[in-house]
Amino acid sequence: MQYTFSEKVSHLQASAIREILKFTSVPGVISFAAGNPAPEAFPVETIREISAEILEKDPIALLQYGITEGYLPLRDLMKKRMELQGNFKPDTEELIITSGAQQVMELACKSLCNAGDTLICEAPSFIGSLNAFKSYNVNLVGVPLDEEGMNPELLEEALKANPNTKLIYLIPNFQNPTGKTTSFARRKVLYALAQKYNTIILEDNPYGDLRFAGENVPSIKSLDTDNRVIYAGSFSKILSPGIRVGYGIAPKEIMAKMVVCKQVSDVHTSNYGQMLAYAFMQKVDFDAHLANLRAIYQQKAERMLSGIENYFSDKIAYTRPEGGLFLWCTLPEGSDMTGFCQKAVQEYKIAVVPGNAFMVSESDITYSFRLNYSTPTDDAIDKGIAILGQLTKNMFD
Amino acid sequence: MQYTFSEKVSHLQASAIREILKFTSVPGVISFAAGNPAPEAFPVETIREISAEILEKDPIALLQYGITEGYLPLRDLMKKRMELQGNFKPDTEELIITSGAQQVMELACKSLCNAGDTLICEAPSFIGSLNAFKSYNVNLVGVPLDEEGMNPELLEEALKANPNTKLIYLIPNFQNPTGKTTSFARRKVLYALAQKYNTIILEDNPYGDLRFAGENVPSIKSLDTDNRVIYAGSFSKILSPGIRVGYGIAPKEIMAKMVVCKQVSDVHTSNYGQMLAYAFMQKVDFDAHLANLRAIYQQKAERMLSGIENYFSDKIAYTRPEGGLFLWCTLPEGSDMTGFCQKAVQEYKIAVVPGNAFMVSESDITYSFRLNYSTPTDDAIDKGIAILGQLTKNMFD
Repeated sequence: MQYTFSEKVSHLQASAIREILKFTSVPGVISFAAGNPAPEAFPVETIREISAEILEKDPIALLQYGITEGYLPLRDLMKKRMELQGNFKPDTEELIITSGAQQVMELACKSLCNAGDTLICEAPSFIGSLNAFKSYNVNLVGVPLDEEGMNPELLEEALKANPNTKLIYLIPNFQNPTGKTTSFARRKVLYALAQKYNTIILEDNPYGDLRFAGENVPSIKSLDTDNRVIYAGSFSKILSPGIRVGYGIAPKEIMAKMVVCKQVSDVHTSNYGQMLAYAFMQKVDFDAHLANLRAIYQQKAERMLSGIENYFSDKIAYTRPEGGLFLWCTLPEGSDMTGFCQKAVQEYKIAVVPGNAFMVSESDITYSFRLNYSTPTDDAIDKGIAILGQLTKNMFD
Repeated sequence: MQYTFSEKVSHLQASAIREILKFTSVPGVISFAAGNPAPEAFPVETIREISAEILEKDPIALLQYGITEGYLPLRDLMKKRMELQGNFKPDTEELIITSGAQQVMELACKSLCNAGDTLICEAPSFIGSLNAFKSYNVNLVGVPLDEEGMNPELLEEALKANPNTKLIYLIPNFQNPTGKTTSFARRKVLYALAQKYNTIILEDNPYGDLRFAGENVPSIKSLDTDNRVIYAGSFSKILSPGIRVGYGIAPKEIMAKMVVCKQVSDVHTSNYGQMLAYAFMQKVDFDAHLANLRAIYQQKAERMLSGIENYFSDKIAYTRPEGGLFLWCTLPEGSDMTGFCQKAVQEYKIAVVPGNAFMVSESDITYSFRLNYSTPTDDAIDKGIAILGQLTKNMFD
């Protein structure tokens, strides 16, 4: 038969990154295109011990149905973590455990946005979230970042032009894809604009625990005097993405709707991941674990940055992230960025993600591309950056 | 601030069953209201061994990101199972692993239905799926069942009255809540009606492996000569619901859209559950495991049925399921069914689910209530059915 799809999905495509990742399985290709944690960052031995303990002590809790809001001991622990990490104190009914942080974006958008409502995001921004928003047919408006985060003048213009703005989506720490961090002053300005135009901020913080340079900046949620910030966090980058455990904090009326949306989608998050995350934080010195992860990523970031300094053409600009997994390189204005990325993977066997993959529309102009330093080995970083540097010199010097 | 919710969720309520389940935690209440597998049905020792093996042999595959479509060895194995259990042979690209079977309903509805499109379901039907459909603002139309399944004359009337029908949702085996099984002849008639009115059938089969009486009936998907059936299955009732692993099979163009919708929601299903389900089916004699489960549920069903025969008023009709977890009792026409259920839990301390919870609208008239025999202990079944029987005699004899 012939199928007619819903308006929600008829325009949706599989992520462009997935297409690029196909090249990365070609033998001999060095990939800076992924966003995976470093394999050496997984505390395998401890996870093995804890898993055995859970299955010994409380197998029925793991195997039986759980509640949609999540495993209560983990929710209680996350409330305490939010005080430490996010500088705010949620109530239990404001906090949900999700099947990865991406689910927070999907639930928030489904709960708050009708088709045609405006959702403002950073341009560029995380492609997974952008696709989640697009799947509800919102009017997605991208606002460029400057060195301090989303540009406030351009945000205000967008808010004026789109009085039906329901959400402003921000990744304030070590943003994906740019690696940029929104300054505290800028966070206050952005929050004030959300107040002035009476809209809601969706603050996505998957990398916040991975700061390896600079000073901690309080979350936007910590400024939230009138309950207009939804906050998302994740265990994907600090424990394991394969267990699919994230969390969301929202004003309780919004959270009540998000809980119902989660209930009709996957009923509850897999108990194994929730119980593992809880027991892991209880059992190990979690701060020491995070310090170890930060050291791994700092070393990899510095290795990549020093390679760029040594081998890249001086015409290439790049960000210096204070944490997270990514940095962002920009070719001279007017360059054929997608041509560069294609040449990199096809001729030089180095995979990077072309920046337009992160724009609201892939036809939006950008001269940038994303590099990931968490997944490749040290040798792959050294070798791959030298090769990519040669391409930049061949093309731009 | 004041919040404005999307049209999708503004009418949504938390499941009525959840409210009833609150009573079941009151001390002394015997609950026939749940839908959980029997705790003794969990193969805890084997799961313990297999989990240790997975974490020993392949920890990185468990902890790292997986692909949206699911763990390939499990997908390959499920293709073979579908031949055995469902009598059809899907291609790999037609099969996805989901975070529980409920996600198949949500992904199918999101992919195929616009707000206002009609979705026809059995009346009564599974409340979780009905809420998933309602969360996309479809026009939900319930068609009553007779002894052989959904009534075909009434289905045809509904199809004529609603030319925008995108999906017909059916639970052909041991339906939740009625315990009824759709006959093979009826499956053919329902499929022919889907052909005549050019619509798609969504076949939900979470209980199919739990047949303890009668003969296996081929799936509707096995009749699907022109690619108009989406099929959903689950490990919740045959291994564990807490691991959140289900699966969906759909024509490949539809599956491509469902995969994108899953990607933007939870990226992929938790690897632990997928790897456990795969290894479990590989390691144990799965047919012997299923035979053991069937024996457990048959014993419990027969125990409950003989209690009903012995203690209930003759005025109460009830179904005799050939499998699954539920049976369906019907009070005399005109009875105050919700009053009966309230009295049962508040005065007699027996929790059952009032039948209107499973109707398209809770204000739709039904004189029935649902009993679950999988979760309570044998003693609870004996004691609870005797008490509930006394209430039926007090009210109706």
